[in-house]
Amino acid sequence: MISNRIRNKKLLDKVCTAKEAAMLIKDGMTIGTSGFTPSGYPKAVPLALAELAKERNEKIKINLYTGASVGDELDGVLARAGLISKRLPYQTNESLRESTNNGCCEFLDMHLSHVPHYAKLGFLGKIDIAIVEAVAITKDGNIIPSTSVGAAPTYVQMADKVIVEINTSQPLELEGMADIYIPEKPPYTRPIPIVMPNDRIGTEYIPCDIDKIAAIVITDIEDNVRPLAPIDEISQKISENLINFLKSEVKNGRLTKELLPLQSGVGSVANAVLAGLEKSDFENLVCYTEVIQDSMLELLDSGKVLFASGTSITPSAEGLKKFKENINFYRDKIILRPQEISNHPEIIRRLGVIAINTAIEVDIYGNVNSTNIMGSRMMNGIGGSGDFTRNAYISIFTTPSTAKNGEISSIVPMVSHHDHTEHDVMVIITEQGVADLRGLSPKERAKAIIDNCAHPDFRPMLLDYFNRAKEGKYKHTPHILNEALSWHDRFIRKGTMKID
Amino acid sequence: MISNRIRNKKLLDKVCTAKEAAMLIKDGMTIGTSGFTPSGYPKAVPLALAELAKERNEKIKINLYTGASVGDELDGVLARAGLISKRLPYQTNESLRESTNNGCCEFLDMHLSHVPHYAKLGFLGKIDIAIVEAVAITKDGNIIPSTSVGAAPTYVQMADKVIVEINTSQPLELEGMADIYIPEKPPYTRPIPIVMPNDRIGTEYIPCDIDKIAAIVITDIEDNVRPLAPIDEISQKISENLINFLKSEVKNGRLTKELLPLQSGVGSVANAVLAGLEKSDFENLVCYTEVIQDSMLELLDSGKVLFASGTSITPSAEGLKKFKENINFYRDKIILRPQEISNHPEIIRRLGVIAINTAIEVDIYGNVNSTNIMGSRMMNGIGGSGDFTRNAYISIFTTPSTAKNGEISSIVPMVSHHDHTEHDVMVIITEQGVADLRGLSPKERAKAIIDNCAHPDFRPMLLDYFNRAKEGKYKHTPHILNEALSWHDRFIRKGTMKID
Repeated sequence: MISNRIRNKKLLDKVCTAKEAAMLIKDGMTIGTSGFTPSGYPKAVPLALAELAKERNEKIKINLYTGASVGDELDGVLARAGLISKRLPYQTNESLRESTNNGCCEFLDMHLSHVPHYAKLGFLGKIDIAIVEAVAITKDGNIIPSTSVGAAPTYVQMADKVIVEINTSQPLELEGMADIYIPEKPPYTRPIPIVMPNDRIGTEYIPCDIDKIAAIVITDIEDNVRPLAPIDEISQKISENLINFLKSEVKNGRLTKELLPLQSGVGSVANAVLAGLEKSDFENLVCYTEVIQDSMLELLDSGKVLFASGTSITPSAEGLKKFKENINFYRDKIILRPQEISNHPEIIRRLGVIAINTAIEVDIYGNVNSTNIMGSRMMNGIGGSGDFTRNAYISIFTTPSTAKNGEISSIVPMVSHHDHTEHDVMVIITEQGVADLRGLSPKERAKAIIDNCAHPDFRPMLLDYFNRAKEGKYKHTPHILNEALSWHDRFIRKGTMKID
Repeated sequence: MISNRIRNKKLLDKVCTAKEAAMLIKDGMTIGTSGFTPSGYPKAVPLALAELAKERNEKIKINLYTGASVGDELDGVLARAGLISKRLPYQTNESLRESTNNGCCEFLDMHLSHVPHYAKLGFLGKIDIAIVEAVAITKDGNIIPSTSVGAAPTYVQMADKVIVEINTSQPLELEGMADIYIPEKPPYTRPIPIVMPNDRIGTEYIPCDIDKIAAIVITDIEDNVRPLAPIDEISQKISENLINFLKSEVKNGRLTKELLPLQSGVGSVANAVLAGLEKSDFENLVCYTEVIQDSMLELLDSGKVLFASGTSITPSAEGLKKFKENINFYRDKIILRPQEISNHPEIIRRLGVIAINTAIEVDIYGNVNSTNIMGSRMMNGIGGSGDFTRNAYISIFTTPSTAKNGEISSIVPMVSHHDHTEHDVMVIITEQGVADLRGLSPKERAKAIIDNCAHPDFRPMLLDYFNRAKEGKYKHTPHILNEALSWHDRFIRKGTMKID
């Protein structure tokens, strides 16, 4: 068994307990880990690290760099132990979110394609140790990643030392699904030779200098994947609106029935949107995305989607079980790439990806907030939404038109935080309808968004703001600056954006 | 003479007066023109169109799409005649700016690389007529562009009819400087084969179906280029700070003395920054930029810069004279590309361009406003700054720390319009100093920007805001929403951001 997983006998000397491996991690170090939207992240070593710090009553602090969100065994445990000084680039863990928002942990919210790129250029400082979850290590010391690739290839390349967590709960059949390609640094960068989503351009393993492998830990802790909320009526309506929009694009000759490669953000609305495709009459679809969720597997099952390229497989517990049981069916229909490639502007623009992401709020001029609630409170992070939106063939944002039982309007005069600007956002979809902003000036956009996307409870208030703003001296992007953020301020003070 | 310029005898039948050509333009049409940051734009036909409308007392309206800013003969004359219904994607003309801000003209502010891309995908509607300034038309009807390429190749490809302005003030020696390459639409797009700034990948002419050429107008009106302000003390200091920053990158091993391809925005500060390179000890530099200004020509003169790729040549009147007199020296040191290529994310990221652009204002968290003064008043537009910033090796924004005789702080609690978000901006430089934001969390950025870039008159006010914001409940991006835009509001009401 172990010889299947560790294929170089000399490496058996490196096998140790999680605690022994954790002892390599010192105060002030920067740790780069595998893991993306929580799958394929190291589990045993961070658990041991927290335990060790508690035992020794040490207040060590580390910088924790991952691919995207990771499970509670990494983010949650370390955040609660107060061990994280700085964290990048994305997270969904409740404890880490609390640490970020109460000021205990500095969080750096980055475009996911930028993370390995900047790390490689030396802009994120030295990476001391990389910790990578793997299904196996090859004879030459190369690492076969598990359910995600993320930024692990670059962290391994940059780190002084590598800790490998061999996770026996991850099937060996994952071998062959990864395609690892790390672009050279400028001026030696060459065109990335992907012209179809299913092009393979790299190796099945993460290249690793065998001498860097400092510890190998055997574990069987399963990916702590997140349950998906059932598809509610609002998500259902958003999905229908999206499908109808895509149909009209086909009708107008701007897309074919095969569409173009699809990218979809994570979460329940995103899942509903993909589920909607199942019942549509689009066919022979392909995906070039980040995360492969349940509905993507179902689309592969039915043959509606022929192929999916991503950087991680993150279904629900049930979906994961199905995936593992039918892995031979999925193996040649899925490629897992480094996030530098899955989210690369070059490839997204070349393939003409249709990008579908979720907004927290949208303003009347088409700016989108994906991250900071009421301007200051970090939710998860921008993730790959910026990589895809800026370079998409069509960039779409979905959001329910209200939140908090109707007290918050997701359409506001001005977003309280800007992640995607008016220059990048093409289409807004709520359960109310679709605003197609392509070719529209700011004032034309305002009309389209208020009329088609805002909830009727807030539509008159938005129109009132817009009309009064247009009375001002400068009418390009009409605003009343001392009122533009007053809806958020009212919510903070009174718990509602509505006026009494 | 004319046979050098119009090389197909049959096309001589198409030669007509500007007025006759202008009569092809009807109410409601969308016109796509050559021209980029004002050079190489059509002049005679728009002048005649305005005259014609006046003569006939017609109130026709057209949509005017260009490459970037164009001269007064196009933007100014048509704006003052009230003929422009919608205009994209960038402008610097006073009359057009007034039309935009008083609501007479709808202006759509776009990333310049997106313009031909979206036009080609049909997202900007039908292009009825393309008007292109040229130095010549080949035997096959292909068009040799003059001092800019811009979006003309795509407008010609998309338009029903093409009007060519042969401008005899533009030297025939410009032939050979253009390199025209239009990527196919997805799913047929292939890697753009540029790996060095001086790679030639296309044709010397804009491909044009000869039957589309509906009119040819001969003119000799010169490019109405803009004078450059002399380099003042503030620009000088910004330039010094920038050079010192680049030196420290070389010292830290993140750049070599050859640096990487440089992009520089337009205007006087940008010009000063490039002039600073002349005295530096960097060597064998190359540029991959949009606009070739005076200081770029001087850097080519001295051999400090070996090669420059751009989409337009726009020196001052004096610089233009020098360029024309020494065109044989410059011919093999400059390539003019379509703006889809000069600004393409694929190439910018591959080459590792160092992007240097000008901000109107910057906030303490590193968001940049490049376009809307006090949130609503359009200045020029985002231009290519977003294309370069997002994909740059290092993205730098420069701005004097104050404006309006010190009454406006260019560093504010929250920018009043967001063009570049915290996710994209790496370095801020004012005459006060340099804030290197790479790897910093929002609160760390605030400290760096306030300490290093803010003017001493405003530093205590910024610190006060930041410190009070940190007292709030959510500390990821601390803001006080009912105060975040109060500095702008105060300026609008009192003419100063200072507190009495």
